[in-house]
Amino acid sequence: MIIRPPSNWFRMLLVWNGSVLPSILPQLGLMLAISLVALLGDGRIFGERVPLDTAPFPLLGISLAIFLAFRNNASYQRYLEARQLWGHILAAARTLTSQTLAYLPPERLDHAQFARQLIAFVHLLRHQLRGSDAGADLQRLLEPQAVAQASARNYRPIAALNDMRRTLAGATAGLPGGEQTVWMLDAQINNLADAVAGCERIAGTPIPYPYGVLLHRTIYAYCFLLPFGLVHAIGAATPLIAVFVAYTLVALEAIAQEIGDPFGVAPNSLALNAMSRTIERSVLELCGLALPAEAPVGKGYQVS
Amino acid sequence: MIIRPPSNWFRMLLVWNGSVLPSILPQLGLMLAISLVALLGDGRIFGERVPLDTAPFPLLGISLAIFLAFRNNASYQRYLEARQLWGHILAAARTLTSQTLAYLPPERLDHAQFARQLIAFVHLLRHQLRGSDAGADLQRLLEPQAVAQASARNYRPIAALNDMRRTLAGATAGLPGGEQTVWMLDAQINNLADAVAGCERIAGTPIPYPYGVLLHRTIYAYCFLLPFGLVHAIGAATPLIAVFVAYTLVALEAIAQEIGDPFGVAPNSLALNAMSRTIERSVLELCGLALPAEAPVGKGYQVS
Amino acid sequence: MIIRPPSNWFRMLLVWNGSVLPSILPQLGLMLAISLVALLGDGRIFGERVPLDTAPFPLLGISLAIFLAFRNNASYQRYLEARQLWGHILAAARTLTSQTLAYLPPERLDHAQFARQLIAFVHLLRHQLRGSDAGADLQRLLEPQAVAQASARNYRPIAALNDMRRTLAGATAGLPGGEQTVWMLDAQINNLADAVAGCERIAGTPIPYPYGVLLHRTIYAYCFLLPFGLVHAIGAATPLIAVFVAYTLVALEAIAQEIGDPFGVAPNSLALNAMSRTIERSVLELCGLALPAEAPVGKGYQVS
Amino acid sequence: MIIRPPSNWFRMLLVWNGSVLPSILPQLGLMLAISLVALLGDGRIFGERVPLDTAPFPLLGISLAIFLAFRNNASYQRYLEARQLWGHILAAARTLTSQTLAYLPPERLDHAQFARQLIAFVHLLRHQLRGSDAGADLQRLLEPQAVAQASARNYRPIAALNDMRRTLAGATAGLPGGEQTVWMLDAQINNLADAVAGCERIAGTPIPYPYGVLLHRTIYAYCFLLPFGLVHAIGAATPLIAVFVAYTLVALEAIAQEIGDPFGVAPNSLALNAMSRTIERSVLELCGLALPAEAPVGKGYQVS
Amino acid sequence: MIIRPPSNWFRMLLVWNGSVLPSILPQLGLMLAISLVALLGDGRIFGERVPLDTAPFPLLGISLAIFLAFRNNASYQRYLEARQLWGHILAAARTLTSQTLAYLPPERLDHAQFARQLIAFVHLLRHQLRGSDAGADLQRLLEPQAVAQASARNYRPIAALNDMRRTLAGATAGLPGGEQTVWMLDAQINNLADAVAGCERIAGTPIPYPYGVLLHRTIYAYCFLLPFGLVHAIGAATPLIAVFVAYTLVALEAIAQEIGDPFGVAPNSLALNAMSRTIERSVLELCGLALPAEAPVGKGYQVS
Repeated sequence: MIIRPPSNWFRMLLVWNGSVLPSILPQLGLMLAISLVALLGDGRIFGERVPLDTAPFPLLGISLAIFLAFRNNASYQRYLEARQLWGHILAAARTLTSQTLAYLPPERLDHAQFARQLIAFVHLLRHQLRGSDAGADLQRLLEPQAVAQASARNYRPIAALNDMRRTLAGATAGLPGGEQTVWMLDAQINNLADAVAGCERIAGTPIPYPYGVLLHRTIYAYCFLLPFGLVHAIGAATPLIAVFVAYTLVALEAIAQEIGDPFGVAPNSLALNAMSRTIERSVLELCGLALPAEAPVGKGYQVS
Repeated sequence: MIIRPPSNWFRMLLVWNGSVLPSILPQLGLMLAISLVALLGDGRIFGERVPLDTAPFPLLGISLAIFLAFRNNASYQRYLEARQLWGHILAAARTLTSQTLAYLPPERLDHAQFARQLIAFVHLLRHQLRGSDAGADLQRLLEPQAVAQASARNYRPIAALNDMRRTLAGATAGLPGGEQTVWMLDAQINNLADAVAGCERIAGTPIPYPYGVLLHRTIYAYCFLLPFGLVHAIGAATPLIAVFVAYTLVALEAIAQEIGDPFGVAPNSLALNAMSRTIERSVLELCGLALPAEAPVGKGYQVS
Repeated sequence: MIIRPPSNWFRMLLVWNGSVLPSILPQLGLMLAISLVALLGDGRIFGERVPLDTAPFPLLGISLAIFLAFRNNASYQRYLEARQLWGHILAAARTLTSQTLAYLPPERLDHAQFARQLIAFVHLLRHQLRGSDAGADLQRLLEPQAVAQASARNYRPIAALNDMRRTLAGATAGLPGGEQTVWMLDAQINNLADAVAGCERIAGTPIPYPYGVLLHRTIYAYCFLLPFGLVHAIGAATPLIAVFVAYTLVALEAIAQEIGDPFGVAPNSLALNAMSRTIERSVLELCGLALPAEAPVGKGYQVS
Repeated sequence: MIIRPPSNWFRMLLVWNGSVLPSILPQLGLMLAISLVALLGDGRIFGERVPLDTAPFPLLGISLAIFLAFRNNASYQRYLEARQLWGHILAAARTLTSQTLAYLPPERLDHAQFARQLIAFVHLLRHQLRGSDAGADLQRLLEPQAVAQASARNYRPIAALNDMRRTLAGATAGLPGGEQTVWMLDAQINNLADAVAGCERIAGTPIPYPYGVLLHRTIYAYCFLLPFGLVHAIGAATPLIAVFVAYTLVALEAIAQEIGDPFGVAPNSLALNAMSRTIERSVLELCGLALPAEAPVGKGYQVS
Repeated sequence: MIIRPPSNWFRMLLVWNGSVLPSILPQLGLMLAISLVALLGDGRIFGERVPLDTAPFPLLGISLAIFLAFRNNASYQRYLEARQLWGHILAAARTLTSQTLAYLPPERLDHAQFARQLIAFVHLLRHQLRGSDAGADLQRLLEPQAVAQASARNYRPIAALNDMRRTLAGATAGLPGGEQTVWMLDAQINNLADAVAGCERIAGTPIPYPYGVLLHRTIYAYCFLLPFGLVHAIGAATPLIAVFVAYTLVALEAIAQEIGDPFGVAPNSLALNAMSRTIERSVLELCGLALPAEAPVGKGYQVS
């Protein structure tokens, strides 16, 4: 995720990082080449005039607009929902911590250890979603035995929640009014479990594949034909217009692709590292424990 | 569902599986034939010039765009909601398992048997939605008597939930604090029952029929008239443009049709097999029981 | 509601039932007449050339597209929400039945009678929404005295829920753990009451009237002017194109009208009869009672 | 709100009430005048030819379409949410009444008085939202002392809910199982309070002001330029087309304005009077008390 | 936020405040200059004719429309959600106050002090979201020691909620039926905590950066090319049309930018000051304490 302070309207025209330009330069280079072929050959290929004008482009434009708008909205919806799920995780983690602090005396629950268990769950979820190795985070937070146990499972975040539920069931057993307390704590565990299932759903069910193929083909067909359709109308301005139209279309496709995979590690994916760190810090602060530093901001205003 | 690793932008232009091209080849062949008739006859039929140019197409385009966008969004909404409902089933199944493990001692509930009952419910729902035979899955999971009982019902997943509720009511009767426990477990059964009703709603109430008819007719009228409208403007490029426009429109209709029936067995329907297997595996892991293998990925990155 | 198995792409072009063509034939006939007047008079009326070309139609098209898309989406939203509310009624009716069976012994509640009370509620709601006579259904399900009592009320489904709540309050009074049970049952009654209020809202608050007037006028102005705008550009093809454009616009308006009144009895309204029957069957099956047959499918795949 | 039975497609073209025509006649008159100036002067102003054709209008059309669609959707969303909130109020009022009747014996709560307190709350909310005087309704329902007390407050509906909560807390104190009852009743009070906050939010936070200014200017600039752009293309048809285009745009803006302020008293605002009356009637019927008549339908099918 | 009474349709064309015109004057001035260069040079730059006509603009228009509509909708969604979250805070604050008043006797809770604690939480959240200094508000409401404690934390609103939960846990300990009461109060604290997490999410996760860059570039490329595309078609009308088109596009971008950062202090950001004051007033009125005045309306109908 790129978090960049707002800049002057003119400087924003020249931004390089965060404009997805770097990742689509090859395609734009190809577009420029095609445009120059069309321009220098006066719309001919092998001496044959390509019989195109601008008439067919609005016809292609209907499908193109529907595909692009749909793909972009569907991707952003996924991004937004993923972000909301992590917001719910933050809220539930804080609430669970605050509730155990208020309703369970220290002799019934080791609050610091429970907080570490909760934080380990968050990191386990992040590593599962990104397919990265949870080892370092686990060792930092849990005892060696618990690390081994966690690593042996397939559905690790859920197993962590299951352990937490058991811990809390033990801590409240026989407490006066404990049924009510267990109910409140159980509800937060469920919130966390629902968020896990939501994240797994987004990670495991991409936007149906043919949409991507169809959009991709429509964009490139549209772009590759464009110079031959424009060259008789606008002549020397063809490369400029054709490359710029291609830039907007290809860039939008590229952004939608990154956004639609919100748990990835592309520049515009969600900043799971920073969010996990925030949850860790907030839970620890509630417990009155020492806080690690916030996640650093990388080059180009990049938060990972 | 097709889950395919992202490929190079150029190779994606040539993808065959997952592009719905195979299923719409006949229509595209017909479009090519009509285009050639228009091109070779110079826009004449039986010697009469078809008096079309590109002017009327934007007029048809308004309805076409509204129908296409609506149909596509409505279908995707159904797909998304169906997927969410199965996400809720996963979450509720895990929570119910975790809760029974934490709050009900083994002498009150046979956890392994209850897990199998829960897994059988999931497979019953899948078979009901797909209209397939649940026999093999039931025999694998339940005792013969329970299999016979389940098969005699009309609304099988709901009957399975009803049995589970009765089992849990018995297991908690007289337990200290049992009212609270029964309330928590009952809430998960309700979550599962709500998901069943949601799935039945999607399966039983298609998108109103006339939308499909109207979209279908508009697409084909648009496509069949297109070559005669284009031929005087772009001549030899007519077959290329007309077939490509038809491809985008017919393919989008085909995708929307598949997606709009998310419990079907088309290549882009939901992977109910794989999701049932995931639920089974996750529930069994929580209980500490042996896990079956994950659902295999078929030819062409196909998950069923 | 029309539930029709998918047909071949070619046969679908020729479907008659479910295409709303029958109900808009007069308007299309008028359009044909106007087109022929424009064509045969060469775009003249009373000898005066109507000075139109295709230029103004995209200008009208902006409003037309916004009105059509809005009206259609708003109508479909109403349809969808109405269907969801009836899905909630199914889910709550099943859950309430299952809960009373599991938590209330037969000596405290006559389960069969309660089920009939619940089913009567569903039919009362259906008859209220459609403005039809509930007499036959009530007499089939309730005792004469209860029939008379139900008929004397203004807000009948709500009165039925109120009676059910009182029945359940009596049945649980003094039961050990009864407070928790009454809470669970009360929640399902609330779900049913919320669905009633939702249905009343949809039935009582149509889409604001001026939208319909404005859309109607824009469509007809657009269609009636169209032949005179097209005739100089496409000559003899004018009637074909003009009637087809009118077909798509008028048909979409007709569908949106039917869908937007989801509790009506038009061919594309919700199948309230079939849904009530499904709820009745599902509730009775849970109680182990005899089931009536499913609602029959009418002519033209029509489910009422 | 206008609730009008569906009429014949032809008569609907001629509807006067409910078409917002009356309120935009001045603007349309001005449009007619401008069109005639353009037509009679052959597109000249002070002898200078206004150098416009239809080319720039699609460029303006992009912004216009986005503004119009956005404004219309945002307004309708507000209307819909406001209507839903009042639906929630109806549902919660009924549920609260039914619950107090079922769970609180008459010696603990004066049901008739509580019903009047609840009804007074509804009218207080309506009067606050419309800025009208609640005096008559309060005097009809409450004792003089309570009227004086209610009138002295700033946030009256919330104060009424606060009083009801206190009444119920007193009525349930010491009742066996009373904690559970108070919880159920408290939840309904919260539902009512949430609806109050929702209504206040809609009433107090209009759609951001600049959207309205921008849309307004774009519409009028578009309309005032239109005759000069059309006159060379369609000559004598210019006034007809220009006025009709202006009618659709200005009328849509006018509708969106009315709908976007759903608690106002414009013809298309919500029928708060009728809805309050329905809630009053439904609550009274549940208590077995005498019902007032339904709210009357005004001239032009107007429900206020 | 600008809250301005509706004005006459004609005067609204001339509004200055609230039209975002002031903030985009430099860009419009530049547009005017470019238009004049194009007009006076007859579409030539350094003697070279810029070979553009209006044909390429609809091609750019597709991307432009998608970007603009998406950006605008995404921004408004953020604005709306932020407003809803503050609506939830108002509702939860009132409910929590009303509940403590009804269920906790004064000897168990100092209601006035608790109200001040709650109000301080609201101001802490506002100051955190706007990055402003909470000192004055804290000193007004809390004791010096509590002020120091609050200021030492990183996540201040959450710490305030945590303190409130502890206060309530202490006040209900040992109260008969106190478990139920603690549950009800705990639920409101959770509502507040969820709203905090929601606000933090909106504040911390802007709309993905590249969307803004892409939209910005497309708008300016479109606008800067426009005069050269229009000058041969509409001659002297070019500056008028080009500047007006630029005005609509640049203004929409500017509004979307302000709205998309709803917790900022731009003229169209949310009126957090006024909303905090309303919550403070409403909570104090429920407690029967003296109310501060409402937040003043600034110059130009501005509410901050």
